Amino acid sequence: MATDYVKEILEGTHRYAARLITWLEDEDPRGHEVMERLYPHTGKAYVIGITGSPGAGKSTLTDKLTRVIRQEGLTVGIVAVDPSSPFTGGAILGDRVRMSELSEDSGVYIRSMATRGFLGGMAKATGDVVKVLDAFGQDIIIIETVGVGQDEVDVIGIADTTCLILVPGLGDAIQSMKAGIMEIADVFVVNKADRPGADQLAAEVCHRVEQDAHIKPTDWNPPVTRTVAVNDEGTTELWQSIQRHRQFLHESGKFIEKRRQHTCDETLRMIHNELFRIVRSQLETSGQLDHLVEDILDRKRDPYSIMRQIVNKWLSIPQKHKEAS
Amino acid sequence: MATDYVKEILEGTHRYAARLITWLEDEDPRGHEVMERLYPHTGKAYVIGITGSPGAGKSTLTDKLTRVIRQEGLTVGIVAVDPSSPFTGGAILGDRVRMSELSEDSGVYIRSMATRGFLGGMAKATGDVVKVLDAFGQDIIIIETVGVGQDEVDVIGIADTTCLILVPGLGDAIQSMKAGIMEIADVFVVNKADRPGADQLAAEVCHRVEQDAHIKPTDWNPPVTRTVAVNDEGTTELWQSIQRHRQFLHESGKFIEKRRQHTCDETLRMIHNELFRIVRSQLETSGQLDHLVEDILDRKRDPYSIMRQIVNKWLSIPQKHKEAS
Repeated sequence: MATDYVKEILEGTHRYAARLITWLEDEDPRGHEVMERLYPHTGKAYVIGITGSPGAGKSTLTDKLTRVIRQEGLTVGIVAVDPSSPFTGGAILGDRVRMSELSEDSGVYIRSMATRGFLGGMAKATGDVVKVLDAFGQDIIIIETVGVGQDEVDVIGIADTTCLILVPGLGDAIQSMKAGIMEIADVFVVNKADRPGADQLAAEVCHRVEQDAHIKPTDWNPPVTRTVAVNDEGTTELWQSIQRHRQFLHESGKFIEKRRQHTCDETLRMIHNELFRIVRSQLETSGQLDHLVEDILDRKRDPYSIMRQIVNKWLSIPQKHKEAS
Repeated sequence: MATDYVKEILEGTHRYAARLITWLEDEDPRGHEVMERLYPHTGKAYVIGITGSPGAGKSTLTDKLTRVIRQEGLTVGIVAVDPSSPFTGGAILGDRVRMSELSEDSGVYIRSMATRGFLGGMAKATGDVVKVLDAFGQDIIIIETVGVGQDEVDVIGIADTTCLILVPGLGDAIQSMKAGIMEIADVFVVNKADRPGADQLAAEVCHRVEQDAHIKPTDWNPPVTRTVAVNDEGTTELWQSIQRHRQFLHESGKFIEKRRQHTCDETLRMIHNELFRIVRSQLETSGQLDHLVEDILDRKRDPYSIMRQIVNKWLSIPQKHKEAS
């Protein structure tokens, strides 16, 4: 079964890729089984992250950028990550609808993700989908996500080049600085650059980039690109900025460094998610969790000692670490 | 040692509480040791969540609301959660500076938190601090955080009453709906209500509340309160809305339901964090992670089978689940 999937996905059969992604999202064991065999065929795609506040115009920019990339004959995968509703667990697909034109292009693969993941599951799920699209043969993969929150920072951490989209008038720059998001940007984009305040915002960001370069000298000073995505203005320049960053990563040897860090983060994340998935499922299906919760609510027990006991009892790390590898 | 801390914190010795919080943030084992004994003394405080986009005026509103609550003679704890910088790991304390007047009031305990936590660690750390302030004797605890991202949704999930702050002109309402944040609000606040568009925003939110009530009938329809926090307008009304929600929770029996859900989430979260902390530390200090990463990068191995092997080797769940409880 798994070999069939690998073969079909490598040959570009859309429905096999779609089914695999669904398995991965649903934590169906067949998903990982296929991924084990698909993994050797990954690592070729270049990954771009598009992040910014809600309302910054990320979807429109992704749409236009994709068209520019397609004109060069490269195929594109788009992974749109929406923070989930804690109630519906569903992604809202409205934004994707106007991408319908793109979705008729067989060189573009769009996947909207619900982020029903619990505790860091979003980055794991996104990483899985990126690998499927990579093996599927997409040359460029764009991850689009909101830029606030640790989970989103982890998602964007998958990208080789991260673009932070700011817009005038939202107080975005200051808030992004506060949130530390500025620091993960390889390319800045001032979108809606026809609005009042765009010059000032671009100047502020440039100033900040210079300051940073002064404090912590680096070989790459993030460029500030202006766009009016709805009018398709500046999109080609953005693509050029991304390509310059890609070239920089390769020439400086930082590309492999970055990929090493991603692999490290990802491996930890996978082990962690899997451990927790099993522990949680065991606690829930056995009814043990309900009992523990009642005891904690009644103050008969405390969650800290319960945590310690469960982890001590259930987790046994081999002394000789080689054993596990 | 732990008993000294419990005694001092219950007696309201500020520096003991502060040191305990630092231990918890630093994952110093002494932190959990004290918490095990402090836990029976928690559960008395009422927890209010204040959330909304960057720039919505959360800090100002928290400041004014605190003054209203203090006038009733109740003590207040404020936990301000800033999304962390992945680089500096530090919270930016600027916002807190203008709260200096409040911080001279011995009935108010303010704690700004860096969210250096990794993978859901923010909610765990916030839950810890809420419990410390609860045991310390604060009657009301206010958690202030940005409302985007899964981690922030988890943080706000700690609150008994969640207030969502919207402002006219930010396209906030629509974006919040998209992100599913509307659904967690018990009280809506239209802040900066003297700005153009406030009426429309309030109307939109009211309309949404009515729609929701139509789809999913409930005994509580979130009220929409208008405030101009900088001028201290509407703050008393907000406090009244919160108190009405509190009364509703108690009278309907939903309070204990909510606390049960929180305890369940929290217990899982703690186990989750502890599993990851130990596994990560083991993989890193043994050097095993570095080897694995090189093999994965070279495509000699894949992260999925590594994950499976490590989890199979390290995790042993007792057959009789009672053993662990």
